[in-house]
Amino acid sequence: MLRLSAPGCERLLQTPSFDAEFCGAEANVAVGLAHFGVKVDMVTALPENTIGDAAVNALRGFGVGTEHIIRCGDRLGICFVEAGAGYRPARVLYDRAGSSLAEVPAGAFDWPRALEGADWLHITGITPAVSRKAADATLKAVQAARELGVKVSCDANYRSTLWRYCESPIPIMTEIVKGVTLLSAGADDFEQMLGLAGQADDYVSLFEALSAEAMDTFPNLQYVAGTVRDVRSASSNGWSGVLRSRAGVLRAKRYEIDHIVERIGTGDAFTAGLLYGLVNGKANQEALELAVAAGCLKHSIPRDLARMTLDEVEGLVSASSVRVRR
Amino acid sequence: MLRLSAPGCERLLQTPSFDAEFCGAEANVAVGLAHFGVKVDMVTALPENTIGDAAVNALRGFGVGTEHIIRCGDRLGICFVEAGAGYRPARVLYDRAGSSLAEVPAGAFDWPRALEGADWLHITGITPAVSRKAADATLKAVQAARELGVKVSCDANYRSTLWRYCESPIPIMTEIVKGVTLLSAGADDFEQMLGLAGQADDYVSLFEALSAEAMDTFPNLQYVAGTVRDVRSASSNGWSGVLRSRAGVLRAKRYEIDHIVERIGTGDAFTAGLLYGLVNGKANQEALELAVAAGCLKHSIPRDLARMTLDEVEGLVSASSVRVRR
Amino acid sequence: MLRLSAPGCERLLQTPSFDAEFCGAEANVAVGLAHFGVKVDMVTALPENTIGDAAVNALRGFGVGTEHIIRCGDRLGICFVEAGAGYRPARVLYDRAGSSLAEVPAGAFDWPRALEGADWLHITGITPAVSRKAADATLKAVQAARELGVKVSCDANYRSTLWRYCESPIPIMTEIVKGVTLLSAGADDFEQMLGLAGQADDYVSLFEALSAEAMDTFPNLQYVAGTVRDVRSASSNGWSGVLRSRAGVLRAKRYEIDHIVERIGTGDAFTAGLLYGLVNGKANQEALELAVAAGCLKHSIPRDLARMTLDEVEGLVSASSVRVRR
Amino acid sequence: MLRLSAPGCERLLQTPSFDAEFCGAEANVAVGLAHFGVKVDMVTALPENTIGDAAVNALRGFGVGTEHIIRCGDRLGICFVEAGAGYRPARVLYDRAGSSLAEVPAGAFDWPRALEGADWLHITGITPAVSRKAADATLKAVQAARELGVKVSCDANYRSTLWRYCESPIPIMTEIVKGVTLLSAGADDFEQMLGLAGQADDYVSLFEALSAEAMDTFPNLQYVAGTVRDVRSASSNGWSGVLRSRAGVLRAKRYEIDHIVERIGTGDAFTAGLLYGLVNGKANQEALELAVAAGCLKHSIPRDLARMTLDEVEGLVSASSVRVRR
Amino acid sequence: MLRLSAPGCERLLQTPSFDAEFCGAEANVAVGLAHFGVKVDMVTALPENTIGDAAVNALRGFGVGTEHIIRCGDRLGICFVEAGAGYRPARVLYDRAGSSLAEVPAGAFDWPRALEGADWLHITGITPAVSRKAADATLKAVQAARELGVKVSCDANYRSTLWRYCESPIPIMTEIVKGVTLLSAGADDFEQMLGLAGQADDYVSLFEALSAEAMDTFPNLQYVAGTVRDVRSASSNGWSGVLRSRAGVLRAKRYEIDHIVERIGTGDAFTAGLLYGLVNGKANQEALELAVAAGCLKHSIPRDLARMTLDEVEGLVSASSVRVRR
Amino acid sequence: MLRLSAPGCERLLQTPSFDAEFCGAEANVAVGLAHFGVKVDMVTALPENTIGDAAVNALRGFGVGTEHIIRCGDRLGICFVEAGAGYRPARVLYDRAGSSLAEVPAGAFDWPRALEGADWLHITGITPAVSRKAADATLKAVQAARELGVKVSCDANYRSTLWRYCESPIPIMTEIVKGVTLLSAGADDFEQMLGLAGQADDYVSLFEALSAEAMDTFPNLQYVAGTVRDVRSASSNGWSGVLRSRAGVLRAKRYEIDHIVERIGTGDAFTAGLLYGLVNGKANQEALELAVAAGCLKHSIPRDLARMTLDEVEGLVSASSVRVRR
Repeated sequence: MLRLSAPGCERLLQTPSFDAEFCGAEANVAVGLAHFGVKVDMVTALPENTIGDAAVNALRGFGVGTEHIIRCGDRLGICFVEAGAGYRPARVLYDRAGSSLAEVPAGAFDWPRALEGADWLHITGITPAVSRKAADATLKAVQAARELGVKVSCDANYRSTLWRYCESPIPIMTEIVKGVTLLSAGADDFEQMLGLAGQADDYVSLFEALSAEAMDTFPNLQYVAGTVRDVRSASSNGWSGVLRSRAGVLRAKRYEIDHIVERIGTGDAFTAGLLYGLVNGKANQEALELAVAAGCLKHSIPRDLARMTLDEVEGLVSASSVRVRR
Repeated sequence: MLRLSAPGCERLLQTPSFDAEFCGAEANVAVGLAHFGVKVDMVTALPENTIGDAAVNALRGFGVGTEHIIRCGDRLGICFVEAGAGYRPARVLYDRAGSSLAEVPAGAFDWPRALEGADWLHITGITPAVSRKAADATLKAVQAARELGVKVSCDANYRSTLWRYCESPIPIMTEIVKGVTLLSAGADDFEQMLGLAGQADDYVSLFEALSAEAMDTFPNLQYVAGTVRDVRSASSNGWSGVLRSRAGVLRAKRYEIDHIVERIGTGDAFTAGLLYGLVNGKANQEALELAVAAGCLKHSIPRDLARMTLDEVEGLVSASSVRVRR
Repeated sequence: MLRLSAPGCERLLQTPSFDAEFCGAEANVAVGLAHFGVKVDMVTALPENTIGDAAVNALRGFGVGTEHIIRCGDRLGICFVEAGAGYRPARVLYDRAGSSLAEVPAGAFDWPRALEGADWLHITGITPAVSRKAADATLKAVQAARELGVKVSCDANYRSTLWRYCESPIPIMTEIVKGVTLLSAGADDFEQMLGLAGQADDYVSLFEALSAEAMDTFPNLQYVAGTVRDVRSASSNGWSGVLRSRAGVLRAKRYEIDHIVERIGTGDAFTAGLLYGLVNGKANQEALELAVAAGCLKHSIPRDLARMTLDEVEGLVSASSVRVRR
Repeated sequence: MLRLSAPGCERLLQTPSFDAEFCGAEANVAVGLAHFGVKVDMVTALPENTIGDAAVNALRGFGVGTEHIIRCGDRLGICFVEAGAGYRPARVLYDRAGSSLAEVPAGAFDWPRALEGADWLHITGITPAVSRKAADATLKAVQAARELGVKVSCDANYRSTLWRYCESPIPIMTEIVKGVTLLSAGADDFEQMLGLAGQADDYVSLFEALSAEAMDTFPNLQYVAGTVRDVRSASSNGWSGVLRSRAGVLRAKRYEIDHIVERIGTGDAFTAGLLYGLVNGKANQEALELAVAAGCLKHSIPRDLARMTLDEVEGLVSASSVRVRR
Repeated sequence: MLRLSAPGCERLLQTPSFDAEFCGAEANVAVGLAHFGVKVDMVTALPENTIGDAAVNALRGFGVGTEHIIRCGDRLGICFVEAGAGYRPARVLYDRAGSSLAEVPAGAFDWPRALEGADWLHITGITPAVSRKAADATLKAVQAARELGVKVSCDANYRSTLWRYCESPIPIMTEIVKGVTLLSAGADDFEQMLGLAGQADDYVSLFEALSAEAMDTFPNLQYVAGTVRDVRSASSNGWSGVLRSRAGVLRAKRYEIDHIVERIGTGDAFTAGLLYGLVNGKANQEALELAVAAGCLKHSIPRDLARMTLDEVEGLVSASSVRVRR
Repeated sequence: MLRLSAPGCERLLQTPSFDAEFCGAEANVAVGLAHFGVKVDMVTALPENTIGDAAVNALRGFGVGTEHIIRCGDRLGICFVEAGAGYRPARVLYDRAGSSLAEVPAGAFDWPRALEGADWLHITGITPAVSRKAADATLKAVQAARELGVKVSCDANYRSTLWRYCESPIPIMTEIVKGVTLLSAGADDFEQMLGLAGQADDYVSLFEALSAEAMDTFPNLQYVAGTVRDVRSASSNGWSGVLRSRAGVLRAKRYEIDHIVERIGTGDAFTAGLLYGLVNGKANQEALELAVAAGCLKHSIPRDLARMTLDEVEGLVSASSVRVRR
């Protein structure tokens, strides 16, 4: 996806220019993992034109493998973004109709080849939201992974303004999540995408209830993860995360983020940190702490991509101070 | 007025470029009202040159009517602006000597035609501060409105560095306010522009006293409005507003703004919100809440103009969270 | 030194451009003093090329005397900077190997001429960190000053990534500090550069102990100054300062800085404020308050240099509010 | 259409930013005419979102009427542009699939109302190239104009990379041109869009033959216009124009343009100049000279829109020198 | 003067930002001379505000002396500039009404002190065009110079859009030129400012006639200089110069400039080159060649100031090739 | 190398920002070849820091292999660049002292592994100019290639301001060229680097003589290539190339480049085109035409790198027109 954002804190087209970055919920996780030294390949569809070429170059520059990217279709999906500040929330306006990814036939990807040697497949709930074809392709990917013994991570990422081709995401997402090992979800995701709702005094308790329900409903699930966010303003959030495994729920260090540069992409950085931990056999608590620290740091980095090193993330986990590094 | 501001948080001419925007206390209200769907015309004087043309185009683009703008004189007034941050306040340096507005003869405007069909005329105390001619023109406008049964809104906006042609603004402003329906003013304004002073334990009590005194002094006044600002730093303010009508004083929801992008123009956004409410027959409390929310949101938008929709303002009035909008 | 920084809050080379500024620990103090109206000359070495010319022009533009600058050597030292935000600290990457200053022979400077008529010589611990030649030059400067009765100010400024030509800075810095009148130092500086360590419940107590020890060790010292910083995040710090004279320790007003635009150069602004006070015969308490206010204001100004007037600093010392200045 | 262009002479995404402008073959003519003081309305379809709002504001700012614009559909069409230089031609990459204009039902426009009081309707061959629906809408517009006695101008503008929904544009364009009064076309347009081909020693002779053939084929045609371009490089062109009326062919002054800032939009400026002349009853020769001068000047203005005054165009027609204007 | 120019080849306010530079006909010559190593002081009036401070810093940075600058008045004059290209000429829009320089009393300058030790005083015909006060100040300066034996250089620089306070510049300029040693003028200048007109087949012959007439009329004149420009387009000019002394007329090498980056300030660079030669006792022919080469090079440098070294100018005088310098 | 260039046509630090690009004579060829679809690896030394990481990412993004890059040393070499225009030549200021490449031990590279499977090794005369160590490393590379049957391409690229560690490059370059298959050189290169001088009426004849002499002197040489440039100005050049093989001298199509955007890197694009042809077994004439066309196109692309496709180069070889591509 091509992200076009207004400069600084401006409103869209306040000045007639855009900052550009190739990104997307899956690409953000891939780039984050590559920064952490994990070998990662992107599987997607891009148009056979200059914009598609530039997207490939961008991913490749970060060390993300691009050989399984299919080149077809008319256009690259676009999103227009303006950053939030204070009482004005960030806004994302999707322009994804007719994109290569929305139109790619489900059978176009050679999943056995793409997944060869892989430990994990990561998908999100945004791709199936784009079109029925994309939903079919996502389901096919999950099924192929399952047959090949590749674990599947899925970030639910409910987007109400997408999901326009069907009545409800629930039947589709239910089918997908049946093959998922690690589900990342929040309260809206559980309810809108899986039909699981509940009530509790605080968000973590709610997550505990819903994630337990999810584990009951989907026996394949080994992990359910969630970010914990206390939105004081668009510029200041409390931030943490929780991880349920079959052994119970873990909580992590909480960060008080007082100057949010960019809110978008922080959940993807969380996921990249978590997958880094799981791929590298870290203990669940450590993996969760890395995830939360990665997501925390991402709030300080403009645009979607998690441009940070493992050193920085590990440093934050054990940090006593945010002093200048010289 | 042409606003020339240093990029980001830079000091003036730290780098040799300026961001430009056409604005001004009256234009800001006009553009805010146009964003809220109110039909509005600007009456001012602009030079007959490329800069004047660009100002007309800018206003027209926002949907502000420009047919009553007079083209005459030598130059468009300029202000140089640097944003504040932390302990450094924002600064405005006026360069308005000899501007078209300062030099336009009071009789140049055809007020009966300009006010035809209007509900409200909005003026500010900045125009009469620029020159005696501009003060005369303002007074003429108020008198014409009164004769035509058009209500008059006046934002006092005391600027100590202007008001150089006379000893004190008090005689002039007193004459003007005699025709005003809605006066927006703060403690400095009451004292420096109307000669009304007082003392109280807190700002709202002081406003209550001064606004009561104003209502006594000026029987035409139906409303006295004020913003309430608790300046913790140039980046963090408490923010609310008060509105006195003949029925008493109303207070509004208070916002803790923790990341101020732009301080300038927030009072004008407040006024635009208030006038929107009054023009559309909202209850006084609702009008005040819209005013305060509009002013609150404006703190997040760079430069002077209130680039925000009614949806956003209404959303903030009833908001429970500042989450990303996708 | 040529500072190359990423735009806004970006990471280095996130977009392919750099903001440039000529600066450095000594230059920052010089430019700050020039802003405060103090006559000041810079003594350094710059290459005989366009970059060196531009550095001279920049200093001269601020009113810093440049006639004692030696033009020699291969290159101007560079530092790459990215601003911090929230939990991400600012970063400085030095590229100073082989710079004109690192390679200049200690005898190249004509100190008696350069110091003629001077009250103070200001040096920092960064120059001796760059190379042995630079350390020798620094020592020669201090000795010349002492012989000429010129007081010496030294900001310790320990930089662990420099100091690569020797085992430890302690022998060199001990020799230098023997000639110093005013030492600015923090806990790391005392320990790493002078071998003075201690423990205390809070930072100010620790400073009291270490500065007392320093005064015992170095009888020439008349003042030991230090900034007091409570790092809540890269964007929010508590900030103050302390000054020990032979009469005891003075503390200053504390500022809660809630939106840090630039962390780099704040210590240099503190020093400029302090030297301004001492040069102009202010009382110690007043000098310290000016120093702390100057450093506080500097947090709001992008890049290294202390672009602020004496009026602004004095205004902050006595400020009741951070309101817009028009 | 939203034009996203690389800064200066850069290749697309050489740096990660785009300059943005709302434009398009029809919008360019509308904005040009508005600059020349002609009352003009735009009829098109734009999405009901922030991007659509910004497009409306942009047109309105130039004085183009926007009340007949329909708000519907998913997205605004986009084009990516890089400027040419020397031996590298300018490039345009269309991203128009699924745009509001491509999907708008032909019956959505109320042509009798939109054309009320109009002298001319201007269309181009780009709209029917986008989709069958858009072609139907174009044909409907032409037929409505004909019935209402409104003259129709059509700029053929053959774009080989569009026109993907049908075998050939010829049947569609033939039907459209049956209702056209003024056709602007070049050799490619005649051949690919109307099936009229020919051969001649030079371009003007070829145009004479093809335009005569067109007049024979389409008895409604009163004018056939064409630009004459001698492409020495992407930076240097010879430039003129020809106009056939029923009275014969007129040629115009030829300009040697030696520094092309922007090649895109020059044909649209030519059309705006021509329509200005015809609307205002200028003699054919004078109208053609204005068209050629407008197109010539447009080569000096970045991006699509013809930002120039009538004075400037008329000045060029009679110019003796290109001296600085102060 | 503060120059505000549109970025690149854009039209004014095409994008909402300006590039800024402090300049002016006299400042440009001063900065050019400082680049060539000539000791030079600027005498002017600037407002006592941040903008005035920045102007002082800019001049001082280039090595121009600023101690004779008076700080008074309301504002710094502004000019808005857009660069030309091809058939579109560069444009300058003056906004100088009410500037410090226009309002400064003629007696405010202490000319004997300012001219102490000077060889030359350089003035232009733009200052007397701004206001009668400025004309009086200019005349006083010339008279003071004459009394002190300081030679006077005057660049006539006729600007038709200034000169608004009087019927004709001729009486004023005639009085001024009576004290001038070196007059730089073109055909318009001779006619509009001195009432000297003529006719000839080519421009150089015309200059020969008019300069001879000027020498007859003004016996104090030792030199009359002129630039020779053959305007093929705003991007391509032939360029040379002529110099009449009492010994006759000298012509210089002619340059064919094929890519003009900036047309403004080229005459001032010519004057700086000429004065450099005269101040340093170069032969008249050599001085003229330096002047023409300096003016030629200036066409390649954005904005007003002659940012070039003497080496570069001398290199061009004897150049055989424009190869890359590494 | 990190290239820091002034924006547009500005002089260095005219505004305080730099455009950045990772490039260098060898990297430019590598990136050009990667654009043409040739598999290519870069062998160099980069510092182990953020700047080095960014350089690796940039190369990898273009598809250049980076696994043989050694990470060591203190700094990445820098060059400061300003573009030329008209009579002002482009300028390059090297800042390469103490760079990782200058300090890397000759034995650090594992050439047998790096060259495994390679057809060609490409080197330039800039690397040995940087330091004796770098010269040794270059020689080692050539010798390894020779032993492994890998052909060697060498672009002489004489830079007089480098080559500071020895009296003359001739002994070193002679030793290197003994192992070279394809030498690219101009008249200065032959003379200063190989001691071969001559005289002829025109440049091509001179090249014929010198290249023949080179072939006599170095029996290993199979090709000697040269660019042919007729420098009319910094903005306008005639451009072609010549290629001598053992079968004689071939000449190519000549291009008249009338608007040079960037002069730097054009020789490297020529070399990339030539190597593309030789690697892919094109006939010598075809390879030369591709080289000349690639170099020609590069004049239109800002900064060093040859960002162009093979289609574009081949298109230019057979081009009839430079029309807009849509």
